[in-house]
Amino acid sequence: MVERGYLLLSRTPARSYRKNPWSNHYQKRAMREQEILQIKEATPDHPVLDVIKKRWSPRVFADRRVEPETLKQLLEAARWAASSFNEQPWRFILATKDEPEHYARVLDCLIEGNQGWAQHAPVLMLTVARTTFTRNDKPNRHAWHDVGLAMGNLVAQATALGLHVHQMAGILPEKARVVFAIPDDYEVVAGVALGYFGNPDQLPDRQKESEQMPRSRKPLDDLVFGATWGEAASFLDT
Amino acid sequence: MVERGYLLLSRTPARSYRKNPWSNHYQKRAMREQEILQIKEATPDHPVLDVIKKRWSPRVFADRRVEPETLKQLLEAARWAASSFNEQPWRFILATKDEPEHYARVLDCLIEGNQGWAQHAPVLMLTVARTTFTRNDKPNRHAWHDVGLAMGNLVAQATALGLHVHQMAGILPEKARVVFAIPDDYEVVAGVALGYFGNPDQLPDRQKESEQMPRSRKPLDDLVFGATWGEAASFLDT
Repeated sequence: MVERGYLLLSRTPARSYRKNPWSNHYQKRAMREQEILQIKEATPDHPVLDVIKKRWSPRVFADRRVEPETLKQLLEAARWAASSFNEQPWRFILATKDEPEHYARVLDCLIEGNQGWAQHAPVLMLTVARTTFTRNDKPNRHAWHDVGLAMGNLVAQATALGLHVHQMAGILPEKARVVFAIPDDYEVVAGVALGYFGNPDQLPDRQKESEQMPRSRKPLDDLVFGATWGEAASFLDT
Repeated sequence: MVERGYLLLSRTPARSYRKNPWSNHYQKRAMREQEILQIKEATPDHPVLDVIKKRWSPRVFADRRVEPETLKQLLEAARWAASSFNEQPWRFILATKDEPEHYARVLDCLIEGNQGWAQHAPVLMLTVARTTFTRNDKPNRHAWHDVGLAMGNLVAQATALGLHVHQMAGILPEKARVVFAIPDDYEVVAGVALGYFGNPDQLPDRQKESEQMPRSRKPLDDLVFGATWGEAASFLDT
């Protein structure tokens, strides 16, 4: 009900809510969220896709369910990524709040610092990489990289659907291996919290602060080299 | 000149070219390319972004330059990816045909099987991962994964701009390390060929065949698990 009121508000001019005792609360909340989404939008030096500009990793999610059909779209996007020898080494363990026991077991595989905020996300995942090739059992040097490619797709699709995704390095991979009986030729890569963005004012102060900092990146000159390692590629000067 | 004729054709109704002796050739070529792009389009079970549907990895590229501003957009997209502790472990060695010597040195770092077709791409890259954290020199477990995230962005941006990208596992990473004096705390991850799609009829028969096969992927049921490893997550049935 609360969520529904918020949604209505965000699509309706604020004025029509003046006589609703809840309106001021929801209006403020919606404005606060818009303000933060604005701060978090990338400031690219060259034009990039909206799904790249608007992507960032929040620590607060609204108390709003992600529909199964939406989840399928996210994983479908991941499914069509490129991979070495089309191995598709990506696997996903996914839990929603609809399955509280399973959800709690996934949450337990995150480090404590992440459990604090991630427990409010409507969906948690663990990403897993098959580290050998199916066709010959030899090591797949690109397994983790290709999980990254799949997650790149998933995150772009999520952003297009108005969702936010927060990937976490801070997990307990060996605990997850035991809890979910993950075979030896697979490795747990990362944790993922996803849902609709929520108001950061409920976070502890330290986290609230980082939730409101503009995103920053190294300049291209430090990342893209030409003939000499460490020296900016010449096309960057043109 | 050839390329220009083709470009004009693709934007002009074919009829107006009837009296041009070249028109039949370019018309057939354009139709052939369209036909293959159609075959290669993903057939998702759930709606996904166009940039995900249209992405695939060709082995032929048109003899058409990629403008510096376009390259900057691709790398800018990569730059804004997420990474563990915002380390941004991705580095790129990039060469265009405008710098023949540098281009040849990058080409030399691919395995022979890839050199055959990749030598026609207007742009070659090597992706590189910094495998330690800048802040404490400790190993970054997610370095390769995060290079994958950055490449996911780059490929989506490329697709949006009408380009195609072919990432290659088949490279000589230790040769690349020597040739480009890549420091010990970095690893060469993959090769990348990119440009505008070209007509595959110039490829050897075996490669021509794979260039015309529809793309295939494992079903979601084999990739997305719930409480039990190997068993499809329950939301997939809904």
